[in-house]
Amino acid sequence: MTDHLADDGATPRLRHAMFPVRDLDRSIDFYTRILGMSVLRQKLNRSNGRNTAYVGYGGEQESTVLELVSGTGKEGMSWGGHIAVAVPDLRSICARMEAEGFRFARPLNPTPAAAERLVAYAYDPDGIEIELTQIER
Amino acid sequence: MTDHLADDGATPRLRHAMFPVRDLDRSIDFYTRILGMSVLRQKLNRSNGRNTAYVGYGGEQESTVLELVSGTGKEGMSWGGHIAVAVPDLRSICARMEAEGFRFARPLNPTPAAAERLVAYAYDPDGIEIELTQIER
Repeated sequence: MTDHLADDGATPRLRHAMFPVRDLDRSIDFYTRILGMSVLRQKLNRSNGRNTAYVGYGGEQESTVLELVSGTGKEGMSWGGHIAVAVPDLRSICARMEAEGFRFARPLNPTPAAAERLVAYAYDPDGIEIELTQIER
Repeated sequence: MTDHLADDGATPRLRHAMFPVRDLDRSIDFYTRILGMSVLRQKLNRSNGRNTAYVGYGGEQESTVLELVSGTGKEGMSWGGHIAVAVPDLRSICARMEAEGFRFARPLNPTPAAAERLVAYAYDPDGIEIELTQIER
């Protein structure tokens, strides 16, 4: 019943979503500096030139993270979907992204109507669409 | 310091990954019956014909989930990536998927070498690639 691991290993879980990226350092910079994630793990594969970084808001055992892989040759493809990230400081993140030239599928609605929430749809450096919403404290 | 909510709302988090699907009921069946997720929420949008289901292994406030949306017209596109799910009964899940005619990008390696783990790369009903790994109890 008790185990030294927080996760007893028997519970199914969503581990990560993997995305091909063109420039791993550029993507790591975006997800850490702009979106506030941490680099959890990196792998360098010299045999096939694929470099991998796991980034997220929590540990890989406790939360779902992003797996970013360069060198796959499949960067920049769209699947018609998005990932959704909730942040406590959406206005400042969007202002920074605009200042740095990031593109938006739908810019921030700075004064949302009563039934709306504060939301922006941005693109990461490879064009991955990211729904950004505000968490109220 | 203490709050009645487990999540105090100030912590950024990865909320979901959204995928267009052709047949929402078919996708719900796959993610619940085959992969063991639960339907957390559904939305019907009569104005634009988009139906949405949130499925996952935990609640939307505590974990990252999948948002499945039908009626977007963008189903079946690939982004060169995958989602990764860890399950406690990988062999039986793969056997069931094979029996039901699901395709695999890479079938289960039933007797992995010492440095390998038990893993299969399958496709969901819309061709979304899913890395399936075994969690040992």
